[in-house]
Amino acid sequence: MNYCSHCGAKVEFRIPEGDTMPRHVCPVCHTVHYQNPKIVVGCIPESNGRILLCKRAIEPGYGLWTLPAGFMENHEAADAGAARETLEEACAQVEIGPLYSFYNLPRLSQVYLLFRGRLIDETFKAGDETLEVGLFPESEVPWNNIAFTVVRETLQRYFEDMKRGSFGFYFATI
Amino acid sequence: MNYCSHCGAKVEFRIPEGDTMPRHVCPVCHTVHYQNPKIVVGCIPESNGRILLCKRAIEPGYGLWTLPAGFMENHEAADAGAARETLEEACAQVEIGPLYSFYNLPRLSQVYLLFRGRLIDETFKAGDETLEVGLFPESEVPWNNIAFTVVRETLQRYFEDMKRGSFGFYFATI
Repeated sequence: MNYCSHCGAKVEFRIPEGDTMPRHVCPVCHTVHYQNPKIVVGCIPESNGRILLCKRAIEPGYGLWTLPAGFMENHEAADAGAARETLEEACAQVEIGPLYSFYNLPRLSQVYLLFRGRLIDETFKAGDETLEVGLFPESEVPWNNIAFTVVRETLQRYFEDMKRGSFGFYFATI
Repeated sequence: MNYCSHCGAKVEFRIPEGDTMPRHVCPVCHTVHYQNPKIVVGCIPESNGRILLCKRAIEPGYGLWTLPAGFMENHEAADAGAARETLEEACAQVEIGPLYSFYNLPRLSQVYLLFRGRLIDETFKAGDETLEVGLFPESEVPWNNIAFTVVRETLQRYFEDMKRGSFGFYFATI
């Protein structure tokens, strides 16, 4: 951030009065420009024990497989965002269930939220950010080509829980 | 947002190519300025069945009671942020437990996360954004002067769960 998005003046990077951390502050209109973590929302779309995965058509992780997920939008609920991302990336309709994984990613200033999901039917195709979509039983998941640690860990736990017949809630920091 | 925070040019508000929603876009350096929901993190600090509450010294809710909570910072985990806010607002040290409440507040473009917490000791005093701090059993909570719906609902459920001896996880949209 170089310029004040409100008035266009050059910003300073300093600790505002009464604060404890440096922020981008406008010396002209005095706006303090806070920057906060972003939320990634997605789901684990299941149909008869198989999970829908998307092969990424964008970086990071081009060509690797992931669960449908993306940045939560303003004026949106997290579970609605997870359904929207599934529709956008895999053209698939999903009924969102309970929150399953909560990952803090402080190095990226992100929080990653994955919900359980039930595919309404087995209709899907690649969206704009996706090369290919598939439904995988545990034995056919491309385990060596998963894009992100949060996705691999979530899938491993999900298949374990499925075998146990009881689903938990996982909170972790990576 | 009026000006590009990267190059200082006047921004346009339009749907970028390949997107579905209008964004602030810079016609000069082509930066797309996404805006995303903010995360509020806090906790329910308990000590022997009593809950620590803070009387707010700032708007919104000046003079009303709340749980210690505030905006999560970049490069921070949600549970660490909840402990930090408790220290800042109530000068109290807390051991953070499981996530207890998850509220979507789409009208405010916020997600509100409240963790269970155990006060390390009963040392506390008002921080800069707080007029007064107190430890309340259920019968003495100032129920008619609670600042936010998410806080009142969370406290009601927490005391119910305490009586039942079993704590759940609550996900809701307001």
